[in-house]
Amino acid sequence: MTDRPQTPLLDQVHLPSDLKRFSDDELHRLADELRAETISAVSVTGGHLGAGLGVVELTVALHAVFDTPRDKLIWDVGHQCYPHKILTGRRERIRTLRQKDGLSGFTKRSESPYDPFGAAHSSTSISAALGFAVARDLGGTIDSGLGDAIAVIGDGSMSAGMAFEAMNNAGHLKKRLFVILNDNEMSIAPPVGALSSYLSRLYAGEPFQEFKAAAKGAVSLLPPPFREGAKRAKDLLKGFTVGGTLFEALGFSYLGPIDGHDLDQLLPVLRTVKARATGPMLIHVITKKGKGYAPAESARDKGHATAKFDVLTGVQKKAPSNAPSYTSVFAHALLDQAARDSRICAVTAAMPDGTGLNLFAERHPSRCFDVGIAEQHGVTFSAALAAGGMRPFCAMYSTFLQRGYDQVVHDVAIQRLPVRFAIDRAGLVGADGATHAGAFDVAFLANLPGFVVMAAADEAELVHMVATAAAHDDGPIAFRFPRGEGTGVDMPERGEPLEIGKGRMIRQGARVAILSFGTRLSEVMSACEALSARGITPTVADARFAKPLDRDLILTLAAEHEALITIEEGAVGGFGSHVAQLLSDEGVFDSGLRFRSMVLPDTFIDHASPEDMYATAGLNAPDIEAKVLEVLGVEVLARRG
Amino acid sequence: MTDRPQTPLLDQVHLPSDLKRFSDDELHRLADELRAETISAVSVTGGHLGAGLGVVELTVALHAVFDTPRDKLIWDVGHQCYPHKILTGRRERIRTLRQKDGLSGFTKRSESPYDPFGAAHSSTSISAALGFAVARDLGGTIDSGLGDAIAVIGDGSMSAGMAFEAMNNAGHLKKRLFVILNDNEMSIAPPVGALSSYLSRLYAGEPFQEFKAAAKGAVSLLPPPFREGAKRAKDLLKGFTVGGTLFEALGFSYLGPIDGHDLDQLLPVLRTVKARATGPMLIHVITKKGKGYAPAESARDKGHATAKFDVLTGVQKKAPSNAPSYTSVFAHALLDQAARDSRICAVTAAMPDGTGLNLFAERHPSRCFDVGIAEQHGVTFSAALAAGGMRPFCAMYSTFLQRGYDQVVHDVAIQRLPVRFAIDRAGLVGADGATHAGAFDVAFLANLPGFVVMAAADEAELVHMVATAAAHDDGPIAFRFPRGEGTGVDMPERGEPLEIGKGRMIRQGARVAILSFGTRLSEVMSACEALSARGITPTVADARFAKPLDRDLILTLAAEHEALITIEEGAVGGFGSHVAQLLSDEGVFDSGLRFRSMVLPDTFIDHASPEDMYATAGLNAPDIEAKVLEVLGVEVLARRG
Repeated sequence: MTDRPQTPLLDQVHLPSDLKRFSDDELHRLADELRAETISAVSVTGGHLGAGLGVVELTVALHAVFDTPRDKLIWDVGHQCYPHKILTGRRERIRTLRQKDGLSGFTKRSESPYDPFGAAHSSTSISAALGFAVARDLGGTIDSGLGDAIAVIGDGSMSAGMAFEAMNNAGHLKKRLFVILNDNEMSIAPPVGALSSYLSRLYAGEPFQEFKAAAKGAVSLLPPPFREGAKRAKDLLKGFTVGGTLFEALGFSYLGPIDGHDLDQLLPVLRTVKARATGPMLIHVITKKGKGYAPAESARDKGHATAKFDVLTGVQKKAPSNAPSYTSVFAHALLDQAARDSRICAVTAAMPDGTGLNLFAERHPSRCFDVGIAEQHGVTFSAALAAGGMRPFCAMYSTFLQRGYDQVVHDVAIQRLPVRFAIDRAGLVGADGATHAGAFDVAFLANLPGFVVMAAADEAELVHMVATAAAHDDGPIAFRFPRGEGTGVDMPERGEPLEIGKGRMIRQGARVAILSFGTRLSEVMSACEALSARGITPTVADARFAKPLDRDLILTLAAEHEALITIEEGAVGGFGSHVAQLLSDEGVFDSGLRFRSMVLPDTFIDHASPEDMYATAGLNAPDIEAKVLEVLGVEVLARRG
Repeated sequence: MTDRPQTPLLDQVHLPSDLKRFSDDELHRLADELRAETISAVSVTGGHLGAGLGVVELTVALHAVFDTPRDKLIWDVGHQCYPHKILTGRRERIRTLRQKDGLSGFTKRSESPYDPFGAAHSSTSISAALGFAVARDLGGTIDSGLGDAIAVIGDGSMSAGMAFEAMNNAGHLKKRLFVILNDNEMSIAPPVGALSSYLSRLYAGEPFQEFKAAAKGAVSLLPPPFREGAKRAKDLLKGFTVGGTLFEALGFSYLGPIDGHDLDQLLPVLRTVKARATGPMLIHVITKKGKGYAPAESARDKGHATAKFDVLTGVQKKAPSNAPSYTSVFAHALLDQAARDSRICAVTAAMPDGTGLNLFAERHPSRCFDVGIAEQHGVTFSAALAAGGMRPFCAMYSTFLQRGYDQVVHDVAIQRLPVRFAIDRAGLVGADGATHAGAFDVAFLANLPGFVVMAAADEAELVHMVATAAAHDDGPIAFRFPRGEGTGVDMPERGEPLEIGKGRMIRQGARVAILSFGTRLSEVMSACEALSARGITPTVADARFAKPLDRDLILTLAAEHEALITIEEGAVGGFGSHVAQLLSDEGVFDSGLRFRSMVLPDTFIDHASPEDMYATAGLNAPDIEAKVLEVLGVEVLARRG
C-alpha cells in the first residue's frame, strides 16, 4: 500500500463547482494536493504521468474560472486528464485507471459529462471545440448545455495538419473559442519541425514587441482593472511577451506566453478572456512536463508513460521479461538490413521510441526522419523518397496509419512505389483501449492493388519479414506485429527473405485445418494441445501473407479437410474475407466446406489486459478449441465441457 | 473540327530543353501559343481548363529556367498540367486527354519522366518535393537524376493540413527546396479559411514593409545585377511587397508576391533563386484562373472543369440528359429534410458545387460549412456538431473521405455520434480515373462497430436514404451513390425512412439469387432480361444495407436457391465479404452453396468512360449474365455464345 497524501482541500471537491468557493490562495494549495494525489494514483496504476503533472495548475485554473460541464473543456490526446478526472467526480475511481472495468486513461464521453469529447489520438481538440462553439451559436441543445468551448492542445499536437485545418477554419468562422496552447517542448519525444522552433522563439525574448499591430488585439483584452486590481494587471502585462503573428495570420488573437504553473498568471488571464473575448483566441501557456515530481522531471521522456512505481524513488515496478518486445526485434532487424543497404531509410511520425526507430536515428541520423505528428505527410514523404531511389521503412502504429490512409492509396499504392510499412501495435493493445487498437489495417490495406500484406506469427518471423520487405522492390509492402513481448522462440542469426505469397505448414493433421495470420498462432497451438486429448489433431498453417494469398496452400487445405478455420487479429474484411473470396471464386463452397473465419467482433473493446481483451474478442485458445469442436459437430459437449 | 491555332514556336518544342534556345521575347510568344493550343485541345476533349490557363507563363518559365526531368517539377493536384504535358513530349497526344487509352488528366509517373510524382488529390506536392530533395542529398540514384525539387501548389491546396505538415517538416530539415504558391484565390470554389484572408492581405498593399527582419532574407536573394541588368532588377524589387511571416515562421524564405502572368518577373526571379537559394523557399505568385480566355475568366468557376466546347463562344457541348444527377437528387432531398429539422447542418471540404451543397448554402447559409480542403478537420468538426446536438451531413467524395478515415474511426465511430456521411462518387468515376475511384469506402466503413452503411440502387432510393439518415439518431450512418445521372425512375414525393438493416425483394425467381448493393442493380436487371431468353429467371434483391446486413433476407435467399451472387461497386472486403462472413458463421457453406461475390477487380483502372471502366471491371450486364451461367454450370456455351 502506498501512503495516501494528505489532501484536506481536495477532499472537499466533489465536482468542479466546488472550486468556486475557494480563494485564490486555497486554489494554490489545492493544486499542490492535486499533484500529490495524481502521483499517488499513477504509482498504483501506471499510466501517463508527466503530461498530467504538467497541467495541474492549468486544470485547477480552468475549472475554477469556467463552468464545466456547460463550458466544453476538451483535452487534446486526453492523456493529461488524470487531474481533471480527479476534480470531476471520478476521484474515488482514479486508482482503477486503465484497468479492466476501470477509468479510461483518456477522456471518454461515456464516462462523464465533464468529458464532452473523447480523445486519444492527437490534434482533434480544436476541431471539436469549434464544433461545440458552432453548435452553441446554432442553438443546439444537449443536456449539459452549451457554453464556452476550450481546447487544450500541446505544442506537439499543434504540429499536426489537422490542428492547422481547424485553426484555419476557426479563424474564418470567427466564433468565440479558446485554444490553450500547452507548450512544454516535449510531447512524447522532443518535438520536431519548424513550428516548434517558432514557438521557442516566441518565448526566448526575441523582440516581438516591434509587431505592434500584432500585439494590439491581445493587449486590448487586458485593460485594468483586473479583479485583483490595476497594479497586479500591470505587472502581469509587463511580464508578457506578445507576438504570435503565425496565429494571428490564421485569424486568432494571440496572448502569451504565460507561466502555466503560476496560478497568479493563469487565473487573471483566464478570467479576463472569459469576460472579454469575442472571437477565436489562442493563449500560449508554458509548462513543464512532469512538473513537481523530480523522478519525472529528470526522466528522458519526462515520465510520459510509466509502469507502477515507488512514489519516493520513482523506480518503476515492471515484471521481468524473457522475450524481447516485437518493437525491439523490428528495430534491430531493420538496423541489420540498413547496414547492408544504404538506400534504406526510416520515417516515424513523432514516435521514435514507440517504434524503436530511436536506435536507427542513433546509428544512421541522416537516414532517419521524425516528421512530427504528421502521418499524412509522413506517408507521402516516404513515397517520394522511394521515387527518388531510396527504400523507406515507414514505421507507424496501425491505429495512426489510419491518419495517412489516403496517402497510402493515392501516393504509394496507385504509384506502386516501394515503401515498406512497419505496422506496430497491430491487434488489441491493452490499457490504451479501443482508440489504440489496430483492428482495421488488414482490411484497409489488403484490397489495395499491388500491395503485399504480411503478419508475423512470432518475433523470428518478424525478422524474416523485415528482410522480405527490404528485398521487395516491386511496389509497396506492409508487415504487422503486435504490441508487447514475443513468444520467446529461437531467433535466427539473420533475416532471410520469404517467398512472396507463400505460407508455411506448421503441422499436418486431419479433418480440420486452421490457417492463422499473425500472432494468434501460439493460441492455435495451445488449442491443438487441448484438442489432442480428444483425439483431434488439426492441421495448422501460418498464412504469412494476406496478400497475395497462398492459393495453393489454401485450396489444398480446403480440399484435404472437412473444415477450414482462419484466424486473425483484425476486423472482418481482412484476411478471412480474402480467403473467402478466393474459395468462392474457385467454387470451393459449391460442394460444401465447413469454413469459419475468426475475426475481431463487431464491437469496440474497452481497455483491459491484452489477454482479457482477446478473451472478450473470442480469439484465445479456448475459443479456437470451441470453434474446432463446433465445426466438427461436437460443440454441445465441448462448449460447456 | 476545330481550327488548330498557328504555333510556329511551339512547333519547335519537342522537349523542355528546346526552350533553352529561345530568347525571353520568344518565350513570351511561346506562352501565347501554348495558351492557344491548350484552349484548342480542351475544346476537343473537355477537362480542366481554367487551372492550366492560369499557369501558362509559369509553366514556360519553370521549364525555361530549370532542367527537367532531372529537376523534379511537381504540380499539386495535377489538373493544371496540360500546358506542361504539351511542352514535355506529349503534344501529339494532348487531344486524347482523359479518354480511354489517352493521356491522364493529371500528372502520372507511368506516363512520362517529366511527371516525377503523380497527383490528383490535393496538397501532396510539398511532401513529394521534400522527399526528392532528401533523396538527392542522401545520394539516391534514379534514371532521370536528382536535381532541384519544385512544388507548385495552389492557395486552396495550401489550406490542407498535409501541406502544413510538409512545410513544417521542410522548414525543420532546411533542404534546398522550392515551393511556388500559385495564388489565384480560386481553387474549385472560392477558397475559405483564415489562410486565404492572410494571403489576400499579403498582396493588398498592407504595410508589410515594417517587418524588416522578415524581408531581409528575400531581399538578399535578389541583388543586382540580374541577367537583364541592374535597372530592371531594381524596378522589380520596387514592385515587391515583402512579408509572408507565416511562412517564415515555418522556416521558409518568402519571396513575393509576383505577377504570375508576367514573364519579365517570373524569369529573373526563378533564375535568381535557382542560382542562390540554399534552404527552403516559398515564392508567392499571383495568377488568374482561366487567364487569357474570356469565357473561362468570366465563368463562376473560372472554367474549372468543362465539357467539350466551342472555342469562339466558350459554349459547352454537353449531351442532353433526362435523369437528374445523383448529386442533385441528394442536394434536394437534403434540403427537404433540413426544412423540417433545424438541427440538420451540412459540411463540405471545399466541394460545395461537387457535392451539391451550394444549394444548401444558399438556403441555409448559417447551417452550411465549407471547411476548405480539410477532410480530417471536417469529419471531427462534424462529430462535435453532433455532440453539440446538431445533426450534420458530412458530404464528401468516397476517395476524399479516405483523408478523414482516422477521424471517422476515432471521433465518430468510437463515440457513436450521429454524423451522416453522404458519400458521392462511389464506384468508378470515368475520366478522372483511378485516383478518384471510390472503391474502398464500403470495406473501410462496414467493419466499424455501430456504423450503418447503405448504398442507393437508384435516385429514388437515394431520396429515401437521405430520409433514413436524417431519422437515424443512434450513431453514425453513411450512404453512397455514384457519379453521374440517375436511371430515370419515378421519384417519390418525399423520402421515407427505410427500416435499418432491411433489404427489399425486387423479383422472385428460381435457382439463382442475385443480391445487389448499389447501382449495379440496373445492370442486374438487364442481365436478367438476357437470361430470360434462356429460360433462367434469377431472384433479385436489393440489399440496401451492407451494415447491418439483412440476415433474414440473405439466409432465406441462400436456403431457397442453388446459388447466391452478390454484386457491388467496391473492392473485396466490403459488402460481399460481410455476406460471406455471415454465411460461414451460420454454417451455410457446410452443406454447399454456389456463392459468388462480384467486386471490383484487384487493379487500379485507368480513366475511360464509366461504362468502359465497369466493362474492364467485369461488373456490367454481360458479366453478370456470364456469372449466372457459370454458377449454374452452363458457362462454356454462354461465355463465348
